[in-house]
Amino acid sequence: MKDYKVYCLDLDGTVFRGSEVIPETADFIQRLQQKGIEPYYVTNNASMTQLQFAEKLKSFGISAPAEHIMTSSIAAAKYIKRWYPDKKVFMIGTDGVEEALKSEEIERVYEDADIVLMGIDRNINFQKLATACLEVRKGAVFLSTNRDLAFPSEKGFMPGNGAFTKVVSSSTGVEPVFIGKPEMHMLEAIQYEIGCEKENMVMIGDNYDTDIQAGIRFGVETIHVNTGVTPMEDAVKKEIPPTYAVENLSFWEI
Amino acid sequence: MKDYKVYCLDLDGTVFRGSEVIPETADFIQRLQQKGIEPYYVTNNASMTQLQFAEKLKSFGISAPAEHIMTSSIAAAKYIKRWYPDKKVFMIGTDGVEEALKSEEIERVYEDADIVLMGIDRNINFQKLATACLEVRKGAVFLSTNRDLAFPSEKGFMPGNGAFTKVVSSSTGVEPVFIGKPEMHMLEAIQYEIGCEKENMVMIGDNYDTDIQAGIRFGVETIHVNTGVTPMEDAVKKEIPPTYAVENLSFWEI
Repeated sequence: MKDYKVYCLDLDGTVFRGSEVIPETADFIQRLQQKGIEPYYVTNNASMTQLQFAEKLKSFGISAPAEHIMTSSIAAAKYIKRWYPDKKVFMIGTDGVEEALKSEEIERVYEDADIVLMGIDRNINFQKLATACLEVRKGAVFLSTNRDLAFPSEKGFMPGNGAFTKVVSSSTGVEPVFIGKPEMHMLEAIQYEIGCEKENMVMIGDNYDTDIQAGIRFGVETIHVNTGVTPMEDAVKKEIPPTYAVENLSFWEI
Repeated sequence: MKDYKVYCLDLDGTVFRGSEVIPETADFIQRLQQKGIEPYYVTNNASMTQLQFAEKLKSFGISAPAEHIMTSSIAAAKYIKRWYPDKKVFMIGTDGVEEALKSEEIERVYEDADIVLMGIDRNINFQKLATACLEVRKGAVFLSTNRDLAFPSEKGFMPGNGAFTKVVSSSTGVEPVFIGKPEMHMLEAIQYEIGCEKENMVMIGDNYDTDIQAGIRFGVETIHVNTGVTPMEDAVKKEIPPTYAVENLSFWEI
């Protein structure tokens, strides 16, 4: 099987399912590390920080450097730093977005913003959404961490960041740039940081519409794992199928 | 000019503009009243109660019986009473929606609802929208007072109820029944209550896409007034134009 230099793994459905680790993936990561390769983790989840994810992985017995965890809020902050240096941001979100902006030393404001950045926020309210609408109407660049319309909870499916983003996009008529998968910005941020060739990168995930699509759009090879959202039989029938499809990562030799 | 028995007047842009009365309409209402005709008022605004609107009209020198003011929240409550008697409602909204449900003696609940009703709510938050999503996913009928995506304020355009409704509709995949104009439910509620013939009703308004469309969809004649949103030259060029178009209601003899 092909050897890559940069392995990008989705988290939920690929490394773990909710609060349970997927053992074949944990073993795969260990095999990579024994070869001296530290994989990257690519998640649309914008609510948690890199450190919080690193701790979650540690609780599954997986050691991962915090800076190898690419969340959609980290990618958003890097996107702002790269394309809009020195611009001021009005943000909606929690720890994940707040820490990401801090880590890139981006100034946070509550009015007269150059950029509006939306991520999931359980403390969202009318005032925050109204401010986002006013700032976007005044010309602020509109970014959103991801398109996710719903996420699971103990009570059932909760509205996701993509659903709240529609308040602002429908009211203002301005569509945001979405940072998360299926867009390619997170993979691009990894490549930009380490300066590798696309031929040496691979995106691995369970969800065709987000993980595999992100890889396809960025132009890297992809491995679909049959451990989450998209059944393998559906993934391989797509017009542009994943480069490879495996039941789980115990089938991937390195 | 044709004599009707039931005159339905839009409010904002037709009777008043923000905090200023449109004098030709105030005079028109007085001429109707001198002939013994008490007009109806039809507004998508779901935030204020009938009494609050009656007081606002009174401050403009217009006397209007509160029960002649058909707001989208009153129409929603009447719609629930008529089509879903004895059903329990989870509501998002303020005084307007709350009082409307009370006036129709509809039971309000915070979980296990048969119906979810959304109206504009400046105290909206994650929890309210999450509950709406959960209840709609469990099968509750989904109603929304109106499609309005934005409304003017001193600060600029604020997100309207139609924008917040998209959180729930996009997250659950369930489209609501909208009660307000351009839907016909408010005009139907007036007809149902007084039992008149459609031939004797007319809908008067400044906004082609809401007021005139509501009249067309309900199948009554319409009068467009050139005092608000849609310029007369645009209104008369529509595929289905209003029945009549006047500069203002001083040109309408009765």
